[in-house]
Amino acid sequence: MFQQEEYDVIVVGAGHAGCEAAAAAANLGSKVLLVTMNMNTIAQMSCNPAMGGVAKGQIVREIDALGGQSGIITDQTMIQFRMLNRSKGPAMWSPRAQSDRMRFAEAWRLTLEGIANVDFWQEAVTGVVVENDTVVGVTTALGIEFRGKSVVLTNGTFLNGLIHIGEKNFGGGRAAEKGSRGITEQLVELGFEAGRMKTGTPPRVDGRSLDYSKMEAQGGDEAPSKFSYLDTPRLTQQRPCYITYTNERVHDILREGFEKSPMFQGRIKGLGPRYCPSVEDKINRFADKDRHQIFVEPEGWSTVECYVNGFSSSLPEDVQYRALREIAGFEKAKMFRPGYAIEYDFFPPTQLALTLETKLISGLYFAGQINGTTGYEEAACQGLMAGINAHNKVHGKQPFVLKRSEAYIGVLIDDLVNKGTDEPYRMFTSRAEHRILLRQDNADLRLTPLGHELGLASDERLARVRMKEAQTAEVATLFQKFAIETSEINPMLTELGSAEIHEKTRAVNLLRRPNVELTDLRRALPALDEALAGYDAEALEQAIINIKYETYLQKENQQAARQQELENFVIQGRLDYRAMPALSHEAREKLLKIQPETIGQASRISGISPADVSVLMVYLNR
Amino acid sequence: MFQQEEYDVIVVGAGHAGCEAAAAAANLGSKVLLVTMNMNTIAQMSCNPAMGGVAKGQIVREIDALGGQSGIITDQTMIQFRMLNRSKGPAMWSPRAQSDRMRFAEAWRLTLEGIANVDFWQEAVTGVVVENDTVVGVTTALGIEFRGKSVVLTNGTFLNGLIHIGEKNFGGGRAAEKGSRGITEQLVELGFEAGRMKTGTPPRVDGRSLDYSKMEAQGGDEAPSKFSYLDTPRLTQQRPCYITYTNERVHDILREGFEKSPMFQGRIKGLGPRYCPSVEDKINRFADKDRHQIFVEPEGWSTVECYVNGFSSSLPEDVQYRALREIAGFEKAKMFRPGYAIEYDFFPPTQLALTLETKLISGLYFAGQINGTTGYEEAACQGLMAGINAHNKVHGKQPFVLKRSEAYIGVLIDDLVNKGTDEPYRMFTSRAEHRILLRQDNADLRLTPLGHELGLASDERLARVRMKEAQTAEVATLFQKFAIETSEINPMLTELGSAEIHEKTRAVNLLRRPNVELTDLRRALPALDEALAGYDAEALEQAIINIKYETYLQKENQQAARQQELENFVIQGRLDYRAMPALSHEAREKLLKIQPETIGQASRISGISPADVSVLMVYLNR
Ligand SMILES: Cc1cc2nc3c(=O)[nH]c(=O)nc-3n(C[C@H](O)[C@H](O)[C@H](O)COP(=O)(O)OP(=O)(O)OC[C@H]3O[C@@H](n4cnc5c(N)ncnc54)[C@H](O)[C@@H]3O)c2cc1C
Ligand SMILES: Cc1cc2nc3c(=O)[nH]c(=O)nc-3n(C[C@H](O)[C@H](O)[C@H](O)COP(=O)(O)OP(=O)(O)OC[C@H]3O[C@@H](n4cnc5c(N)ncnc54)[C@H](O)[C@@H]3O)c2cc1C
Repeated sequence: MFQQEEYDVIVVGAGHAGCEAAAAAANLGSKVLLVTMNMNTIAQMSCNPAMGGVAKGQIVREIDALGGQSGIITDQTMIQFRMLNRSKGPAMWSPRAQSDRMRFAEAWRLTLEGIANVDFWQEAVTGVVVENDTVVGVTTALGIEFRGKSVVLTNGTFLNGLIHIGEKNFGGGRAAEKGSRGITEQLVELGFEAGRMKTGTPPRVDGRSLDYSKMEAQGGDEAPSKFSYLDTPRLTQQRPCYITYTNERVHDILREGFEKSPMFQGRIKGLGPRYCPSVEDKINRFADKDRHQIFVEPEGWSTVECYVNGFSSSLPEDVQYRALREIAGFEKAKMFRPGYAIEYDFFPPTQLALTLETKLISGLYFAGQINGTTGYEEAACQGLMAGINAHNKVHGKQPFVLKRSEAYIGVLIDDLVNKGTDEPYRMFTSRAEHRILLRQDNADLRLTPLGHELGLASDERLARVRMKEAQTAEVATLFQKFAIETSEINPMLTELGSAEIHEKTRAVNLLRRPNVELTDLRRALPALDEALAGYDAEALEQAIINIKYETYLQKENQQAARQQELENFVIQGRLDYRAMPALSHEAREKLLKIQPETIGQASRISGISPADVSVLMVYLNR
Repeated sequence: MFQQEEYDVIVVGAGHAGCEAAAAAANLGSKVLLVTMNMNTIAQMSCNPAMGGVAKGQIVREIDALGGQSGIITDQTMIQFRMLNRSKGPAMWSPRAQSDRMRFAEAWRLTLEGIANVDFWQEAVTGVVVENDTVVGVTTALGIEFRGKSVVLTNGTFLNGLIHIGEKNFGGGRAAEKGSRGITEQLVELGFEAGRMKTGTPPRVDGRSLDYSKMEAQGGDEAPSKFSYLDTPRLTQQRPCYITYTNERVHDILREGFEKSPMFQGRIKGLGPRYCPSVEDKINRFADKDRHQIFVEPEGWSTVECYVNGFSSSLPEDVQYRALREIAGFEKAKMFRPGYAIEYDFFPPTQLALTLETKLISGLYFAGQINGTTGYEEAACQGLMAGINAHNKVHGKQPFVLKRSEAYIGVLIDDLVNKGTDEPYRMFTSRAEHRILLRQDNADLRLTPLGHELGLASDERLARVRMKEAQTAEVATLFQKFAIETSEINPMLTELGSAEIHEKTRAVNLLRRPNVELTDLRRALPALDEALAGYDAEALEQAIINIKYETYLQKENQQAARQQELENFVIQGRLDYRAMPALSHEAREKLLKIQPETIGQASRISGISPADVSVLMVYLNR
């Protein structure tokens, strides 16, 4: 043993998953070793310099509510903030931030250094040490063995990473970084199934060479919000992004490169993220579209480097370059480096329990891109959950699993474990059947009490939640009671195009109307305005959402409760699927493989029909 | 051609040499392309987080005086400043700063991005393109060809870099970074001679695991100075370093590892820097010393990472670790990564002209570690000179060469080109025969006029120099004239242990006394104090140095002038060494190889005796 110490949790890799895993386990009290290839690349954003977005922003808020770090760090280092989908219902509101790439990585590193229980080791891990089907440590390239009671693998895109640009390809985990060899091979030997995926990234360009006057500026929100429910700083200054478009000339040039495309020519075997396609994929699949949107995102407060969002490509670099220069505003663009695609190994996540522990090897957890996901947020939340569960297991505590009705994180892990994934999995609001409950505005209400019980969310966090709850309730009562005379409000209602009232009513009744906003009422009713003056904006927002969407929320809660009944049917170890002739062949195979813990989980396994579920119920009720 | 542009200067590598080269050439007006493997590692400090030190600090001030960037960037990002050797004569005063490693790299990157003429490309260069013995560009790993009228190679320790730790070794340019292949092989094919050197670095440790109470704190100067002659910020806060010592137990453990030492067992062929030995080298060579000093240097304002100066090692990592833990204060030390040695290719610098252009290939320049030097400062100043000369050549301007009597930079390049070097060359004050003239306090007076003439040092810099010169002259006159009565000063002189004066005298006469300082006179003579009030501290210091060291300075100037006469004997192309039987065999060989441009240069070639010089003089005077 090298550092003469047995760790509780060894985390391999310091990407978004690894950083959250290390921070969570250590903050819970575990002795953690974070082993990563290069301490200068801790929390590097491999692709675009942004956190959040649709469904992903909700995840970041959930991470924060539980006591994770990604939200805080994004707040500290962002250069622009926007709440997407403001015009839609609150279930769709999604926070998104542009980050300063260098500052983001630096803040993560300093955060980790600030956690007393995190030790660091800079080196490539080459394998895990397994004794009696239980992980007991890792080995490194130098041949060092570190002992640990649990191990979380978060290798990202590094496992046998192969970078493609046009007809050339070479090993690497990310541009200019080495890949990782040995781990996949060992795990396959231990009985794991491995697969291959791919992802891609656009070229980076010199902002000084762009003509922004030909693009449309997109600034941040006027009153920028933030990710963390804690008292993180608010943005006072922001940097804009710019929007421009490809055109037919761009497409024509790109098409010239198709015959050298590693994707179209079949040199890339792994499946890529369907919803983050390369630009060549877009013009190939949507041949009738004559343009595609391009976002030019600055990489930081001061750097001139820009990320060309929407122009991911693995065509030859000269094709990328020539095509890029046909985009409006890019006539004189200078590239810093070309886009590329990368293929890497992943492990089909059906090999995991809902704790992210592998079923084969006790104490071994997988989190992040290694599980077939894509995206920083998806990686970070898995790291958080794996870190929590590794800590809990080592300390003889209960597993920590989030329900699909509690969090996007629950949806994500449940999807991965039960459905698996053939292509890089990213989160969408549509994946969450209870998305109306899983809003960015209430992640704290949903999750901070759980995070606090774990010991991860601080007392301050819980106190803030309790305060928000109390205020929300008070405001709700106030709306219930606040009486409004016809004369007070009818002029305003007319102005809004909403029907006049004919008798005295309560504020709550008007707020239920879709086209009446609280700001309207406050303007018309000085007494109401005054009564609300002392309340936090978040509590007001919460109360309003509860009123406006009351029936939806009730229905959703009922459905969640019904689903929960299925979840409460614990089956683990109680059923012998082989002895159930009524099950379809496919169902029996899947059930044997996945070994669902509840009927609810079984019902979501792809290939399990409602008929199969009934069969299981019958057996369980006997 | 890729970016459709022919560059004036292509700089390969963005270490200290490459950054200065790119900045200088671009600031002079050249179109510059900086190609480097990884834009996240621009200006990485590979080894200790410090700039300056004895003789090296002088070089940084010279770089600054000429209009380079290293001094400014150090000032912006330092966490501690000390003027070393204050108790010795002013020729020995040497500024030294601890740097924040991350901030230093970031500041360099942003500085380069701020220079309009610098383009960037992130990739490994694999070769130069040569046509008719003239360089016309470089090729990259992707097969891209960039065209340029000149190329500056600054590959540092990356050429066929081989990292050693104990019995293990693997390719790499620096910990966790790939090495560079192809360039050496191509240059050798073109006729260059290549050699092999090695250097080493100590382990990095977790500052949180150290017990500083067992060490001696070493703070910065109370009134910290700085490097740049411009208006860079002054330090208001500083972070201390700590001093501790090895002991016999440490040495015993290290000795256990000798049989696995790559150095002692002959696996490392390249010669290492004699004056930066590894700790195993120290205990081996100085077997009677029972302890060696260790400096613990923080790596930045906020990070816990520390550099263990004095403990460079390539012994097996477990030996390093166990030995480290026997050092006072290191009992519980945690390592982040072990020390290692690295072997790399260099090109004997006798293959260069004094402009750093290679003699074989027109337009091809070498700068930095690739020339067999070691140290950031040595690299940076070569980069600056190569960048200037590449620009000048491309624009049909005169070569820019500094004399040995003008600058440490002149000494360094003259030494390299004429004497060559078998082991990593670092600067010492003893290498400069005119070191009394080459002080850190007068680099601006010596060099800013030259830098301004080049177009590199700004008008502001020159104005500051002229102001300093004018003030220095005024102060000197004031000291000449300022009359002092016996009664005014004798009590003070007695107090200082200096002989009383018996008649009225001038200030200048008292200042010549070694134990009388200006502060003493100002204290005793209010009128003098008042007369000096309006003058800058630097002008006062300059005037005092001129007075106190007048005779030394005069002598040195005479010697420099005499040497200069030899330098003025231009021989280039005028002598046929083969036809001079009076020359020694060795002298003839060397002269043929190096083709000195002047008698002065010839006289410094190792192996050329005074007799040989006389022979040359005879031939030239004919
Ligand atoms: C080229 C590229 C394009 C991408 N494009 C997109 C996109 O379009 N959309 C999107 O949502 N996401 C994209 N991503 C994915 C996004 O970057 C990842 O989802 C996210 O970074 C995954 O986080 P992670 O923590 O799982 O792994 P990573 O962020 O990849 O971090 C892995 C970490 O592990 C370390 N490591 C790996 N192996 C070892 C080892 N053996 N020993 C020690 N340390 C090791 C690495 O050094 C690194 O620190 C892209 C990634 C890449 C590389
Ligand atoms: C392990 C180690 C220990 C050291 N110990 C000491 C010491 O004890 N004392 C001391 O004074 N100095 C020491 N040094 C030396 C010091 O780091 C160097 O002198 C200094 O950094 C040299 O600067 P440079 O610009 O020549 O090269 P470097 O700083 O090495 O920079 C080289 C740059 O070139 C890039 N590059 C290389 N090849 C290519 C290519 N083919 N294509 C594109 N880019 C390329 C690299 O990415 C890098 O950016 C040590 C260095 C190392 C690595």
